[in-house]
Amino acid sequence: MAITLYELVAREDRRLSPFCWRTRMALKHKGLEATIEPISYSNKERIKFSGQDRVPILVDGKTVVTDSWRIAGYLEDTYPKQPSLFGGASARGEALFINRWADANLNPAIIRLIVREMYDLVLPEDRDYFVRSREARFGMPLDQLHATRDQHWDAFERALLPIRQVVSEQPYICGTAPGYGDYIVFGSLQWPRLMAATELLKRDDPVYAWRERMLGLFDGYGRSAPARTPG
Amino acid sequence: MAITLYELVAREDRRLSPFCWRTRMALKHKGLEATIEPISYSNKERIKFSGQDRVPILVDGKTVVTDSWRIAGYLEDTYPKQPSLFGGASARGEALFINRWADANLNPAIIRLIVREMYDLVLPEDRDYFVRSREARFGMPLDQLHATRDQHWDAFERALLPIRQVVSEQPYICGTAPGYGDYIVFGSLQWPRLMAATELLKRDDPVYAWRERMLGLFDGYGRSAPARTPG
Repeated sequence: MAITLYELVAREDRRLSPFCWRTRMALKHKGLEATIEPISYSNKERIKFSGQDRVPILVDGKTVVTDSWRIAGYLEDTYPKQPSLFGGASARGEALFINRWADANLNPAIIRLIVREMYDLVLPEDRDYFVRSREARFGMPLDQLHATRDQHWDAFERALLPIRQVVSEQPYICGTAPGYGDYIVFGSLQWPRLMAATELLKRDDPVYAWRERMLGLFDGYGRSAPARTPG
Repeated sequence: MAITLYELVAREDRRLSPFCWRTRMALKHKGLEATIEPISYSNKERIKFSGQDRVPILVDGKTVVTDSWRIAGYLEDTYPKQPSLFGGASARGEALFINRWADANLNPAIIRLIVREMYDLVLPEDRDYFVRSREARFGMPLDQLHATRDQHWDAFERALLPIRQVVSEQPYICGTAPGYGDYIVFGSLQWPRLMAATELLKRDDPVYAWRERMLGLFDGYGRSAPARTPG
């Protein structure tokens, strides 16, 4: 059955969505081939069939699945003979915690650091929408948010703490082998790698070393998307 | 083989340590009996045998294990025929993430809200040590910290967000049945229940409902420790 993944695209064919990277890595983990369909903020007409306007969207034959967490569950349940994304019921439960933590605490910290820089790479036709929607979300012009960027480092550093601890004690968040818990956090940290004008992670940070391990998985799949700032 | 758990005690026999509650719940989950030995801040001579001065300490026959995370791993590996605390290797990895997150983000948010109120329940002989060590940690008198308590609500609310999301979507952090990921967070939220003069959780918060479920486990083991503020 043919699988298609709809995901967000920026200039230079950058795939910038942390949520879509979760799904990309999940597909690789499951060993499933997918056609990837780039969507811009402006041509959301093309995903109207899904009944909502967000990506990722997975289409598997006649089945349409939205939301990265629901897609992960769908892949796990539909392809049980392929390598497990979670590794059991408890791990799946705890992965949801990591997912909601990334959504509530990690991603909001990152976007405040990079949203102005993301703008440079947004497709020309998406710029108006991007600025309007982000300025509404943050309640101020993006330039002003960027000017107060230093205030948001603390939240980012606080969110990095548990990741740093864990990947100092074991190779992956899921232990000795990577799993969906890793792909969630990888999505979050691949995002600034692709879109930020300055590297957010120090080279000697264990989180950097972990991200390097993640970039190397599946024959360097994550690394094949070039960093905006060459390390 | 006889198991002994050394843990911290406050007035009215309150067992106040979030870390010791992790171990208490882990022992129950494993169906293991243990003699519980109360330790005060002032009589740490009694745990000198462990080569360090923190609780919990588990003594199993001739084996001495310190640190709640190491104790959980010890119990899992030593008693593999008893119900699994983690439910697999990936779940164990992810539980470490939850553990380090609770240590780095959740517990520091809680202690700032309750440390002044904890003082009221500290054993008389422990008060000097408690005040001195906490004031050194926070860099200000406890009364001053308490006066600025409102500033710390945001951090607590931010830490509650992922818990709230998860336990709204599934009964336990570990999915349909409780596991060590739940016991970690339960320890953190049992702590203010026992030691805070005001309830930190609203009654209609899904986190409150989850804590109620946790209090009911093992024949109401957690609930047998009375709340400071009757709900």
